[in-house]
Amino acid sequence: SQYDYVKSFEIPDPCLPNCWPVVRIDGKNFHKFSTTHNFEKPNDDRALKLMTAAATSVMDLLNDIVLAYGQSDEYSFVFKKKTKAYNRRSSKLSSVVVSQFSTSYVYHWKKYFPDLELQYPPAFDSRLVLYPSDKNLRDYLSWRQVDCHINNMYNYCFWKLVQSGLTHVESQERLKGTLSGDKNELLFSQFGINYNNLPQLHRKGTVIIRDKERSTNHLAKIAR
Amino acid sequence: SQYDYVKSFEIPDPCLPNCWPVVRIDGKNFHKFSTTHNFEKPNDDRALKLMTAAATSVMDLLNDIVLAYGQSDEYSFVFKKKTKAYNRRSSKLSSVVVSQFSTSYVYHWKKYFPDLELQYPPAFDSRLVLYPSDKNLRDYLSWRQVDCHINNMYNYCFWKLVQSGLTHVESQERLKGTLSGDKNELLFSQFGINYNNLPQLHRKGTVIIRDKERSTNHLAKIAR
Amino acid sequence: SQYDYVKSFEIPDPCLPNCWPVVRIDGKNFHKFSTTHNFEKPNDDRALKLMTAAATSVMDLLNDIVLAYGQSDEYSFVFKKKTKAYNRRSSKLSSVVVSQFSTSYVYHWKKYFPDLELQYPPAFDSRLVLYPSDKNLRDYLSWRQVDCHINNMYNYCFWKLVQSGLTHVESQERLKGTLSGDKNELLFSQFGINYNNLPQLHRKGTVIIRDKERSTNHLAKIAR
Amino acid sequence: SQYDYVKSFEIPDPCLPNCWPVVRIDGKNFHKFSTTHNFEKPNDDRALKLMTAAATSVMDLLNDIVLAYGQSDEYSFVFKKKTKAYNRRSSKLSSVVVSQFSTSYVYHWKKYFPDLELQYPPAFDSRLVLYPSDKNLRDYLSWRQVDCHINNMYNYCFWKLVQSGLTHVESQERLKGTLSGDKNELLFSQFGINYNNLPQLHRKGTVIIRDKERSTNHLAKIAR
Ligand SMILES: Nc1nc2c(ncn2[C@H]2C[C@H](O)[C@@H](COP(=O)(O)OP(=O)(O)OP(=O)(O)O)O2)c(=O)[nH]1
Ligand SMILES: Nc1nc2c(ncn2[C@H]2C[C@H](O)[C@@H](COP(=O)(O)OP(=O)(O)OP(=O)(O)O)O2)c(=O)[nH]1
Ligand SMILES: Nc1nc2c(ncn2[C@H]2C[C@H](O)[C@@H](COP(=O)(O)OP(=O)(O)OP(=O)(O)O)O2)c(=O)[nH]1
Ligand SMILES: Nc1nc2c(ncn2[C@H]2C[C@H](O)[C@@H](COP(=O)(O)OP(=O)(O)OP(=O)(O)O)O2)c(=O)[nH]1
Ligand SMILES: O=P(O)(O)OP(=O)(O)OP(=O)(O)O
Ligand SMILES: O=P(O)(O)OP(=O)(O)OP(=O)(O)O
Ligand SMILES: O=P(O)(O)OP(=O)(O)OP(=O)(O)O
Ligand SMILES: O=P(O)(O)OP(=O)(O)OP(=O)(O)O
Ligand SMILES: [Mg+2]
Ligand SMILES: [Mg+2]
Ligand SMILES: [Mg+2]
Ligand SMILES: [Mg+2]
Ligand SMILES: [Mg+2]
Ligand SMILES: [Mg+2]
Ligand SMILES: [Mg+2]
Ligand SMILES: [Mg+2]
Ligand SMILES: [Mg+2]
Ligand SMILES: [Mg+2]
Ligand SMILES: [Mg+2]
Ligand SMILES: [Mg+2]
Repeated sequence: SQYDYVKSFEIPDPCLPNCWPVVRIDGKNFHKFSTTHNFEKPNDDRALKLMTAAATSVMDLLNDIVLAYGQSDEYSFVFKKKTKAYNRRSSKLSSVVVSQFSTSYVYHWKKYFPDLELQYPPAFDSRLVLYPSDKNLRDYLSWRQVDCHINNMYNYCFWKLVQSGLTHVESQERLKGTLSGDKNELLFSQFGINYNNLPQLHRKGTVIIRDKERSTNHLAKIAR
Repeated sequence: SQYDYVKSFEIPDPCLPNCWPVVRIDGKNFHKFSTTHNFEKPNDDRALKLMTAAATSVMDLLNDIVLAYGQSDEYSFVFKKKTKAYNRRSSKLSSVVVSQFSTSYVYHWKKYFPDLELQYPPAFDSRLVLYPSDKNLRDYLSWRQVDCHINNMYNYCFWKLVQSGLTHVESQERLKGTLSGDKNELLFSQFGINYNNLPQLHRKGTVIIRDKERSTNHLAKIAR
Repeated sequence: SQYDYVKSFEIPDPCLPNCWPVVRIDGKNFHKFSTTHNFEKPNDDRALKLMTAAATSVMDLLNDIVLAYGQSDEYSFVFKKKTKAYNRRSSKLSSVVVSQFSTSYVYHWKKYFPDLELQYPPAFDSRLVLYPSDKNLRDYLSWRQVDCHINNMYNYCFWKLVQSGLTHVESQERLKGTLSGDKNELLFSQFGINYNNLPQLHRKGTVIIRDKERSTNHLAKIAR
Repeated sequence: SQYDYVKSFEIPDPCLPNCWPVVRIDGKNFHKFSTTHNFEKPNDDRALKLMTAAATSVMDLLNDIVLAYGQSDEYSFVFKKKTKAYNRRSSKLSSVVVSQFSTSYVYHWKKYFPDLELQYPPAFDSRLVLYPSDKNLRDYLSWRQVDCHINNMYNYCFWKLVQSGLTHVESQERLKGTLSGDKNELLFSQFGINYNNLPQLHRKGTVIIRDKERSTNHLAKIAR
């Protein structure tokens, strides 16, 4: 019809070939969402497992995702370099990932929070980033995992201090300027906690790998 | 850390100023989804109203959306031209819209389908398109509405023919090459249906407008 | 051949429809170039006319350029909104403009500087910017013209002060913080110059308009 | 001023990190340009050397170009992967390369064509393409060199046939469907020419490498 011309305003957005397309989603204002739903602090295993259930649903939908990494309110999905999914259109890859993740999060909620009604539907943002080399991809995953580690250590200390009777502000003050070693020491000397004995799920986050046969080559390449 | 550099691979994607950003979401493989859930043919009012509930949730989240238009398994969201939401970053606007829509769709499912369990979490794709002029935006909305009209008329005829005993293939054959007038005629003469008396919801789709006070100026401009 | 695949790494870059594509070129390091070639200060009419000769050559090459505006070491070229030149590919429009400008600049040099050998081949950068509305385009041209005006007024004052015996640093100091009115006053009271009587070429820059018949509609639209 | 806002319509266009930025320029309508200037057929050494002089001038300007490859009316410039030139802005890299090439081409014309006046200033287009891996870059260069080889072999045969008395159409017919081996055979049996003894400049094109010390690492990497 006379209106069809508006379709031509859609600008093509193919991913550059021979790069790893990575889609990262992150919960919008999960500070509030976690408070509203009384997530355990600093880590709520139900919440983390629900995130992983949603991520698994994304991997079931999109066969070209070779691995996913999640922590806190975020998940990263790595497509294989040569993926032809959706003709490598960025907006398609990015939107279908975040949408499938989002519907699955709500769909599976009651399995992980059987006693707690979902108060409102949350949202996640999504972005697609391209990584040219395997080293870049490895460093990307390390970047997210270091973020997990740093935040987790801080949060463990913070909530332990709060539980021990300090106010939020006092706990913050106590931790200001401390290095990783200081926090390890604090946990150990003050609370008898050996950080390295804390659950891997909390310290390292979660990796989902597609079935060995199919992805060994890919992962071998990445891990090298 | 030594890994932070990977953040620099995120390429900025601001919307061109002084354009209407429009985000359109569309159900992924809703042919199957509607079949699995026995959607009424050609229009299932519960499904259409659920779409509108999800769209309303998106408008509640993002104040800069001035109107939304929906039909079938799709919804378009029009941001105001001057929106500063997320610094006009395309991927943020596009992803938050589709994610909020997606979680709300599942969240509100049982309200619109009280007797029917959701079988699996669906996905929606999303894209952001920029329209420079008010006329372009009007034509965009007309484009989607003409699409609604054309498909709806076809589907009404098709399913009436099927109900009257024809096979799918025979119905398709019967409609091949028919113009709009022919279909009107067919509905009237063969089934006694006056197309113009069919529900507006089916013929025209749904428009959601933000409260009058705030958006009058915008809409006056668009409609002119 | 086995190497043809590398062509697919070229990413499409079409201009958004219904926007004015504007290509602006600017001399690279013309501070040095103007010094090396002893350009008259603050304006060298030969240099300005050579710029306009080069711009005219660009307009001869590309029929869809409706007007050009130049000042100092820069020129802007406005394509008509509906141009189909090079399928609206940004890199093509931008590169062909700057290349034709560049070769013409050298080619016509001796006509405008008959007594002065070109010491080295200069370079120009180029960018393409899209303007959605006629007002945006008008404001763009005003922006460049205000830039011309401001710089020109400053430079006139600066070089008059230098000619009157002040050092560069002293002249700069004298002008620090002065407003437009102050500079007008300074030129008049100290040097007996009425700024408004200075050549339009220097105060306003140069506009090149394609032959009236063809472009009246366009320009009428822009100027409205 | 009130017009400064138009600057914000310039959209950032950084190159993805860790990719080889390659700028390729190509003569616009050099079919006509070579005819007008009676270029020798199929290869005019003066024209090829002028191209290389212009390319050298580009390399002198931009230190981060590690190598250039040229043939026919085109030249490709390879920036080092980590270049920070112009903050990796695509339009800057692409435009400055083509502009410097263009002015140099005209500037050096009389050195290579002392007896022939330049009839009009030609133009070159320019594009920037990103290659993620060293293999991609190598394949890119191979792609351009195979293009050189294929065209050159065809053109040698074509013009030999024409010189031997055939019309253009007859020569074209004679070559239709011939493979590389057939053309080798034709040159040898009919004209006593051993293709492999023809000048390397014609068969292979020209590579310009920045001084060994600086670029050995880069080139070693590429060539591996
Ligand atoms: N208590 C608790 N909070 C969590 C858990 N996982 C995530 N959160 C909270 C802690 C942070 O406030 C928030 C994640 O940080 P973000 O940087 O993503 O901030 P937020 O989502 O609030 O804002 P954003 O919209 O992403 O900019 O989610 C958990 O397992 N337990
Ligand atoms: N029975 C029924 N079907 C509907 C209704 N609304 C949408 N559908 C179905 C009809 C179409 O098969 C489909 C929408 O068409 P699309 O062009 O979006 O195709 P589909 O979603 O299957 O594929 P896609 O992933 O979007 O390319 O959804 C409804 O109210 N009732
Ligand atoms: N004496 C003289 N100088 C001129 C004339 N036209 C332009 N110029 C000089 C004055 C400025 O130093 C320079 C233009 O300013 P720009 O901001 O473009 O700086 P420039 O080209 O040096 O650096 P760029 O590479 O553009 O960042 O050219 C002229 O007619 N006479
Ligand atoms: N006789 C002669 N012609 C040459 C020589 N080098 C290039 N040419 C001509 C042959 C081709 O017609 C033309 C290069 O082919 P292109 O595919 O670049 O086509 P052209 O520049 O005509 O069109 P374009 O604007 O690039 O699409 O230049 C030469 O050394 N001698
Ligand atoms: O999905 P279609 O077939 O209605 O048409 P489209 O949405 O324009 O196509 P795509 O989803 O591939 O952009
Ligand atoms: O959201 P943050 O603060 O963790 O950091 P980011 O995700 O890189 O920032 P943004 O969401 O604004 O891109
Ligand atoms: O110009 P051609 O035909 O050699 O091929 P191309 O350069 O890839 O085509 P275009 O200049 O249109 O990008
Ligand atoms: O070059 P300037 O300083 O006049 O300003 P600009 O052209 O907007 O800056 P850039 O050339 O870096 O885009
Ligand atoms: Mg964020
Ligand atoms: Mg978050
Ligand atoms: Mg987060
Ligand atoms: Mg679609
Ligand atoms: Mg659909
Ligand atoms: Mg649809
Ligand atoms: Mg500049
Ligand atoms: Mg300059
Ligand atoms: Mg300038
Ligand atoms: Mg070409
Ligand atoms: Mg050419
Ligand atoms: Mg060529």
